[in-house]
Amino acid sequence: MELLKQRILEDGYLIGDSILKVDSFLNHQLDPELIKEMGREFAGKFANQGITRILTVEASGIAVALMVGLELGVPVVFAKKKQPATFVEDIYTADVYSFTKKEKVSICVSKRYLTPQDKILIIDDFLAMGAASRGLVSIVEQSKAELVGVGIVIEKAFQPGGQELREKGIRVESLARIGAFENGQIVFA
Amino acid sequence: MELLKQRILEDGYLIGDSILKVDSFLNHQLDPELIKEMGREFAGKFANQGITRILTVEASGIAVALMVGLELGVPVVFAKKKQPATFVEDIYTADVYSFTKKEKVSICVSKRYLTPQDKILIIDDFLAMGAASRGLVSIVEQSKAELVGVGIVIEKAFQPGGQELREKGIRVESLARIGAFENGQIVFA
Repeated sequence: MELLKQRILEDGYLIGDSILKVDSFLNHQLDPELIKEMGREFAGKFANQGITRILTVEASGIAVALMVGLELGVPVVFAKKKQPATFVEDIYTADVYSFTKKEKVSICVSKRYLTPQDKILIIDDFLAMGAASRGLVSIVEQSKAELVGVGIVIEKAFQPGGQELREKGIRVESLARIGAFENGQIVFA
Repeated sequence: MELLKQRILEDGYLIGDSILKVDSFLNHQLDPELIKEMGREFAGKFANQGITRILTVEASGIAVALMVGLELGVPVVFAKKKQPATFVEDIYTADVYSFTKKEKVSICVSKRYLTPQDKILIIDDFLAMGAASRGLVSIVEQSKAELVGVGIVIEKAFQPGGQELREKGIRVESLARIGAFENGQIVFA
């Protein structure tokens, strides 16, 4: 997605040698028009697949997933990172290690909102080590729903998450794939 | 907003005597079309006010705030509940006690995304005791931006949060105001 790549080059910046910050339009401040375009891109890539629900994880995945759900005309479910005291029903859970937050969290989804009849598209903002995506895939597997694919805004192709998912036979579509950070510069794959 | 009230009556349910769960369309699963309509409602109420940014707090506020931002053509900033390891810049912070999660969290916003020149609309999903809204108002005050108003999806009018904000002279607009839970039934104000 050219518009996204341009924006990453304009507004993204690196911290250390592996963390890309895109807080000005995706992870802290949101650019609604750009995110709407992301929704259209994903909806185009996964059109006519019979998708019944979008699955993401709070918080940064919600905005993009919402726009995909709007385009495809299906509900969006976001996994919660902490089981709220008001969650009294049965849940699916998976453990996810966050490399940026340096902690393990359990994500959970109520069994009400994923059924064996569902065809699920997973949407998330970043794919790097693959921890969050693996957790979401595990939740889909637990629900016995069909996983149609995984849509990622920014994939760091030099980290193993994407390859691992593809080797499992999962269709992964990324709007921007970063091949390397070289001398403080972003190089797309 | 009639569409929302109907949906609350159809899909909402009570836990104990003060917690309303609307997980099927707002807090866990999202109904993109309904949330788009909420965005339109808020955009109509706060049109022509010169709003430059929407402020909300992760996670449940993001979806509605995004749709308001899309309608008004302005960016959306979501306060984070935990300062990420990748946050290296100056931040505004406020402490917020969550009555549903039974814990105090610090919310934070980077100083990059709120400036004294901004005219801010705060958007959140629920207003009950007012803890989250107070935290967001405090962050706007710290930034010296102008607070145009607060838009709330569901206000529990029988709890003091809304009244406190209005007594401070803040314009509060709620799409649905609940006056009471009587014998397990939802009564609108």
